Amino acid sequence: MNAMIDAQAGKGLTQALADQARALRLADIPETVRTWARQCVLDTIGCTLAGASDPLVTILLAEMREQGGVAAATVIGRAGRLPVASATLVNGAASHALDFDDVNLAMPGHPSVAILPALLALAEEIGASGADVLTAFVAGYELQCRIGRTIAPGHYDGLGFHATATVGSFGAAAACAHLLGLGAEPFAMALGIAGTQAAGLKSMFGTMCKPLHAGKAAYHGLMAAKLAGRGFTSRTDVVECEQGFARTHSPDFNPERAFEAPPGGWWMTRNLFKYHASCYMTHAAIETARALREQHRFAPEQVERVDVRLEAACDRICNIPAPRTGLEAKFSLRLTTAMGLAGVDTSRLSSFSEAVAADPVLVGLRDKVALDFRAGIPNTFTETEVTLRDGARLRAQHDSGVPATDVAQQGQGLAAKFVALADPVLGNARGARLIEMVGRLDTLPDVRGIMRLCAGRD
Amino acid sequence: MNAMIDAQAGKGLTQALADQARALRLADIPETVRTWARQCVLDTIGCTLAGASDPLVTILLAEMREQGGVAAATVIGRAGRLPVASATLVNGAASHALDFDDVNLAMPGHPSVAILPALLALAEEIGASGADVLTAFVAGYELQCRIGRTIAPGHYDGLGFHATATVGSFGAAAACAHLLGLGAEPFAMALGIAGTQAAGLKSMFGTMCKPLHAGKAAYHGLMAAKLAGRGFTSRTDVVECEQGFARTHSPDFNPERAFEAPPGGWWMTRNLFKYHASCYMTHAAIETARALREQHRFAPEQVERVDVRLEAACDRICNIPAPRTGLEAKFSLRLTTAMGLAGVDTSRLSSFSEAVAADPVLVGLRDKVALDFRAGIPNTFTETEVTLRDGARLRAQHDSGVPATDVAQQGQGLAAKFVALADPVLGNARGARLIEMVGRLDTLPDVRGIMRLCAGRD
Repeated sequence: MNAMIDAQAGKGLTQALADQARALRLADIPETVRTWARQCVLDTIGCTLAGASDPLVTILLAEMREQGGVAAATVIGRAGRLPVASATLVNGAASHALDFDDVNLAMPGHPSVAILPALLALAEEIGASGADVLTAFVAGYELQCRIGRTIAPGHYDGLGFHATATVGSFGAAAACAHLLGLGAEPFAMALGIAGTQAAGLKSMFGTMCKPLHAGKAAYHGLMAAKLAGRGFTSRTDVVECEQGFARTHSPDFNPERAFEAPPGGWWMTRNLFKYHASCYMTHAAIETARALREQHRFAPEQVERVDVRLEAACDRICNIPAPRTGLEAKFSLRLTTAMGLAGVDTSRLSSFSEAVAADPVLVGLRDKVALDFRAGIPNTFTETEVTLRDGARLRAQHDSGVPATDVAQQGQGLAAKFVALADPVLGNARGARLIEMVGRLDTLPDVRGIMRLCAGRD
Repeated sequence: MNAMIDAQAGKGLTQALADQARALRLADIPETVRTWARQCVLDTIGCTLAGASDPLVTILLAEMREQGGVAAATVIGRAGRLPVASATLVNGAASHALDFDDVNLAMPGHPSVAILPALLALAEEIGASGADVLTAFVAGYELQCRIGRTIAPGHYDGLGFHATATVGSFGAAAACAHLLGLGAEPFAMALGIAGTQAAGLKSMFGTMCKPLHAGKAAYHGLMAAKLAGRGFTSRTDVVECEQGFARTHSPDFNPERAFEAPPGGWWMTRNLFKYHASCYMTHAAIETARALREQHRFAPEQVERVDVRLEAACDRICNIPAPRTGLEAKFSLRLTTAMGLAGVDTSRLSSFSEAVAADPVLVGLRDKVALDFRAGIPNTFTETEVTLRDGARLRAQHDSGVPATDVAQQGQGLAAKFVALADPVLGNARGARLIEMVGRLDTLPDVRGIMRLCAGRD
């Protein structure tokens, strides 16, 4: 990689990554990677449309409307337009409100919601082409995965920073800086301005602050790129400098990990889409529970106990033992396992509710689930053993950290997910039109057509 | 303190501090502390007026004007009004642009610029009284010093977080939550929303990001209080919870330090005002240099060498060895010592310029300054030894961390400083009127009169 050579030649890590991102052109991006990128865009828009009616979005939107300003960018799934920064914040929070958006374990976190709310709002404001948006998105996406890897696992797993919020700020800054065509020094300074604002605590999971983090990452990236473009200064080595971002936010900074490429060379092909509307770290447990139920066809009352073995870090991510709200339910390994065992459709947003959290059958199953946290296994891997009253012991394993290999099939699954999320907000016709337009994103002369279709009602 | 009893009784630290801040009434605040508070307000307005023409403010202001919105709050020292959040960000950056604003070592950082830009803009928007503003200010100020002490010295000195930005976010949130009259739970949630956004790296000192940090602290606090008031949720134990703010941002969290009161009971009486327009950690060195020059009346060319002994942490705060810009000069112990020895007036903003940084006499003196960083002495203490060509050795010591004891005399010094900062922007008459109005702040039925006087031209 050129960036590695640059860094070895004495150019700092931040500047090397900035230069690498800045140099990316559409022609450099293989068609497969473009397909992944378009899938990320469609899935993010779908999640945002469905999340736009969440109470936390209504609160943020009310505040932003009260502040007012030029109607530059669409509020996805809601009425009216807002200044680009306000729209970025609201759309970013909406995109992550349901925790149904995509994941990348390199970051580790939610890559698209940190970038796209800023990038799409900015593109709408300046009338950018689909090709420019797709290229900027890939540039920001790859950069944020590279930075994320240099401070993993200590940043997220160890200390407890929410990488979507922190590392995501860099991705959003790089994408917006790319779209604005910033020069080499301002590009690196945009990363600096974003990096010194990057914040977000994992301990806020289960509150409205978690979705806010995605909005803030996007907002920081947007503002950092815009300010750097106007001549606002920062250091150009924010990641690696003494008392810089990495050393203040990680016990295990290793700059060389920025240049370890995944098979095929693109982190975007390691993107993981969500098909259950709960925290990603609950997905493997749900898959094992569903598989056991489908294979052995037992009823909830036949279950004696459930032993779920998974990686130790999951304990701090999604182990709310007795959730009361729908939001808390998404972060409850015990309840989501119970939902899988009982045949609740965890792909439906409405399955995560106060009623489900209080359902006697589910609560009964939930209280039979024992979690066995172990060190040293992948945090996307789960082994589940169900013991029935008759003494039978049933076992299943699943790893939700393996990306799809059939990208076309993934596209079909994502289109179905999009229809389920978008159609209640936009209706069938506009939903179908969005799928069609995002499917040829890199040929669109202007992304405003997509954004206009995303406008909703209140 | 009631808060300590609450915390010992099982109420969490964040909720205990929130309740303590929330309960504060004007009648609880002794007249001496009110005087300190009014002095902080006047000095912050003066620093903001003088900082408002800085290029970084012009950049931020251009961006905020482009976003537009309701004209709710005055842009201090500039033309026009902005939405309250935009005005907070711009005024916050302006207030710290010159690094001439006040300091509190409990935080440790710049207490007033984190709070007042948010509090004054919010007060202007809602038409709050001077008494309510003063009470909210003291509530936020004391709370942020208490939180700062629980994570000192590791947060700022050790890891390298800029406490003005991070700890300041809590102070701004508490002050705004107090002014908005939030209930107990939303008040603690406002601290949570602010705490999960708190960010800022000390490594950005010497760039435009340092003043931005003050604006962001104020902005986070304002938005956190407004959102919490609208029902936005967070945890109510952000400071002390596992993987919360303190444990992610400090190696030495000690919650009990929140309840250690200073002599007299109020951290505000430990406020340190700046009379040199450079980083506070250069002030003691400047004072020793000035004292030696005045006492022994040597010329720069007589100086053979200069040995400056000070605390090790200063190395990372203000040791730019060969500054090129005025901003860098403010963070150069060697150059500011040279300026003191050469009789340059370091109270004048114009003394920190490219020309001064490149002045041959000053550069010659600067290069004779050797810094001797030691552990275990106060970081506001400096001992300087000047060796003259004739072999004479001259010594002086100064501690800039000792607050004033004569508050009336301090008020005279601050009024003179205010006149020098404000009059070029507002003219003598409006400057004098501001001094008079801020001097009776707690009797004003509405602070809008003060804010109107702060409006400037472009």
